Amino acid sequence: MHFDLTVFSLPVLPILATASESAEHVDGSLVLAAVLLSLTVIYLASKVGGELSNRIGLPAVLGELVGGVVVGVSVLHLLIFPAEGVDASGSLIIRFLELTDGLSPAAANGVFQAESEVVSTLAELGVIILLFEIGLESNLKELMAVGLQASIVACVGVAVPFAAGTFGLMTIFGVPAIPAIFAGAALTATSIGITSKVLSELGCLNSKEGQIILGAAVIDDILGIIVLAVVASLAKDGVVDVNNVIYLIFSATGFLIGAIALGNVFNKSFVVIVDQLKTRGELVLPAFVFAFVMAYVAAAVHLEAILGSFAAGLVLEETEKRKELQKLVVPIADMLVPIFFVTVGARTDLSVLNPAIPSNREGLIMAVFLVAVAIIGKIVTGWSVFGQGQINRLAIGVGMIPRGEVGLVFLGIGSSSGVLSKPLEAAIIMMVIITTFLAPPMLRFVFPQSCPTETDGNPALAEVSSD
Amino acid sequence: MHFDLTVFSLPVLPILATASESAEHVDGSLVLAAVLLSLTVIYLASKVGGELSNRIGLPAVLGELVGGVVVGVSVLHLLIFPAEGVDASGSLIIRFLELTDGLSPAAANGVFQAESEVVSTLAELGVIILLFEIGLESNLKELMAVGLQASIVACVGVAVPFAAGTFGLMTIFGVPAIPAIFAGAALTATSIGITSKVLSELGCLNSKEGQIILGAAVIDDILGIIVLAVVASLAKDGVVDVNNVIYLIFSATGFLIGAIALGNVFNKSFVVIVDQLKTRGELVLPAFVFAFVMAYVAAAVHLEAILGSFAAGLVLEETEKRKELQKLVVPIADMLVPIFFVTVGARTDLSVLNPAIPSNREGLIMAVFLVAVAIIGKIVTGWSVFGQGQINRLAIGVGMIPRGEVGLVFLGIGSSSGVLSKPLEAAIIMMVIITTFLAPPMLRFVFPQSCPTETDGNPALAEVSSD
Repeated sequence: MHFDLTVFSLPVLPILATASESAEHVDGSLVLAAVLLSLTVIYLASKVGGELSNRIGLPAVLGELVGGVVVGVSVLHLLIFPAEGVDASGSLIIRFLELTDGLSPAAANGVFQAESEVVSTLAELGVIILLFEIGLESNLKELMAVGLQASIVACVGVAVPFAAGTFGLMTIFGVPAIPAIFAGAALTATSIGITSKVLSELGCLNSKEGQIILGAAVIDDILGIIVLAVVASLAKDGVVDVNNVIYLIFSATGFLIGAIALGNVFNKSFVVIVDQLKTRGELVLPAFVFAFVMAYVAAAVHLEAILGSFAAGLVLEETEKRKELQKLVVPIADMLVPIFFVTVGARTDLSVLNPAIPSNREGLIMAVFLVAVAIIGKIVTGWSVFGQGQINRLAIGVGMIPRGEVGLVFLGIGSSSGVLSKPLEAAIIMMVIITTFLAPPMLRFVFPQSCPTETDGNPALAEVSSD
Repeated sequence: MHFDLTVFSLPVLPILATASESAEHVDGSLVLAAVLLSLTVIYLASKVGGELSNRIGLPAVLGELVGGVVVGVSVLHLLIFPAEGVDASGSLIIRFLELTDGLSPAAANGVFQAESEVVSTLAELGVIILLFEIGLESNLKELMAVGLQASIVACVGVAVPFAAGTFGLMTIFGVPAIPAIFAGAALTATSIGITSKVLSELGCLNSKEGQIILGAAVIDDILGIIVLAVVASLAKDGVVDVNNVIYLIFSATGFLIGAIALGNVFNKSFVVIVDQLKTRGELVLPAFVFAFVMAYVAAAVHLEAILGSFAAGLVLEETEKRKELQKLVVPIADMLVPIFFVTVGARTDLSVLNPAIPSNREGLIMAVFLVAVAIIGKIVTGWSVFGQGQINRLAIGVGMIPRGEVGLVFLGIGSSSGVLSKPLEAAIIMMVIITTFLAPPMLRFVFPQSCPTETDGNPALAEVSSD
């Protein structure tokens, strides 16, 4: 066989593709092949993990995370991402392509980079769709009705772990002030993704507790971003950049108020527009345009993209298209959301838990302390809820436990500015891993078998909730 | 504001992200922002174009293609892809990110490359899902019942344009044998994507004509790939690589027979597996694992990935889960398929049609000839159908008109081996553009208002078909 036939599987129309171009760029058909294999691995991991987890009475998402760990950098090396010391030769999928699909070792790194970029972006789209779906299942009025409680829970849940973490690291472990403040700040923000997914699986998203948790998670995410701005400017030049903090507070408030105000105006025009459309995708595509624009705006004002899609979901929940849209989003979420959770697991490098590595040993002790603060600091928030007689305070606290996104951003900035010691870095990573993996089973046990929902639950979700 | 806050919008968990890594790699949150904006542009173009096309009684897919042209490299430069002489500065989306999201010009090219890679792969997943959906709506037994007619239509539709094109270019235009054979070969393969999408929109996929067109398009795609192998080895060293041709014939036949044989065995196990699953995505994810594996295998044996997902759809159509799966795939296809058609339009550079460019002038005359051969050479195939009394022969011929994928692969290989002159290259591109854009309206007019379906049509498709 004399020539490379792999170009054949390129199903797009590269009208201007010329020889010089294809030499410069990565072969698209090999990237596609790598993405197809990655998605196959992700779906197998998510289904096997999710089903096993469900069989033993735990939330499916825990199994998806563990499934990700199994196929990822810690165990099987099927799904790995570029990082320090990791290149294409570490990815079994790329090796497999070299064997079966004529991928040359020289081209392997380019394909690996492109494949990782595509899978990472699909994962990010997955969590954007997840929060859009969560927004579609939540009710703005009910969220606002628990707004005050959620705000208090959020503030307590930011202040307590931050203060206890910083103080403890300084006094017990003799960590200097700046790194201690950094680690304390990394303890603040709850991972909305994990918490909302578990609540949704348990059918408890629309319980009073679920609404408070969700509202508090949104607010403490924003608080966490503001804390990050303070801490990062502290770490950079020892002073707080007041302008930036004021800008963030205004943009976050502006975004939230803007989204709610927009909701009251936009829902009607949305329905009018959708009713005009006659070709396929007449509901899903306008909804996604709205969600993606909101996600973009949220990211552009320095919030998280997922807050934008959540707001878009909340706005569209107010329309008469709610039910229909919920049904259409289910299979799309089923396709994209597992990519997020499996890649979270796949990126988790369990070697930080290995006590044979010296910096881990010291880190492990600090990690025990950080995990304790992370858990207790959030559990106490449940008792800050007032004016609610019969409420599951423990469930609210437990719902705030998983850390994630923002905590790791702290870590990234802390590492790059060089203020964190290796053991403290390892301890923060361990804290994020442990709270992420511990929260789903804990939530499962603090919530009753079935939540009494106050609004119409999503039947598509309820039917598959555990037990 | 002292530090870059854009890292905040990164919603994945980069557990091991360190400073050195983020310096090496493209900022994921900016890639996400670029992808969100690209998808917004794609969906707006697809809906505006599709709806307008539908209003004037033409298939929506034509509007999606034209919408793509409007937002693409020919007009608005919103959605463009890396090519010779095109870099990040040509993309308005990247410029917009530089304005709104703190993207630095230095990082722009990296973000542009990554965004293009992601959007291209999403487009490829889109056409894979499209053919999976088409497979799910087709019936293997009915396809096999028209197998002989479809094979004859395919063979005539490959032989006539190839012979007429090659002979005409040599005699009328004095083109040397090798480039003439190349151009003739580029006339052979029908674009399954365009044709099946239009048939589906017209609700004619399950008519006798639709089945023959679909079967013939699959077969002539395979024939086209074999012709390509012959022509490419001819162009390379003047002799035909017989081994490669034999390998291709065997692998294609093996794949098709294997897929059908597998169908009879796998059907039942698929249903058994799916019935065991209790967590979300219990039907869609196993189906996609199957479709993606088949797409991968098809690409690995040097066929097209879309043939694999089409075969997977055909196999699953035989199961009792058919109806349920069809319904679940609709919103996923609605989300992904427009990305394919809009990017096809966006990549189409209409400047090849500009007669002010010298090589285009000469090309235009050859293009008129090639388009005539492309259309007439396929229309005659309708009269090769035998044993069918009342059949719309014109519709069958017209259904085979759009060229695409494989034709452009010929062009790419021809360009890279240097056998094609600039005018001939331009003429082939024009032929592909014109047949692609002409086929949807032509099909609309040769098919009756509503097709008498012989099997159960897909209600989700039928309800939005034009008029």
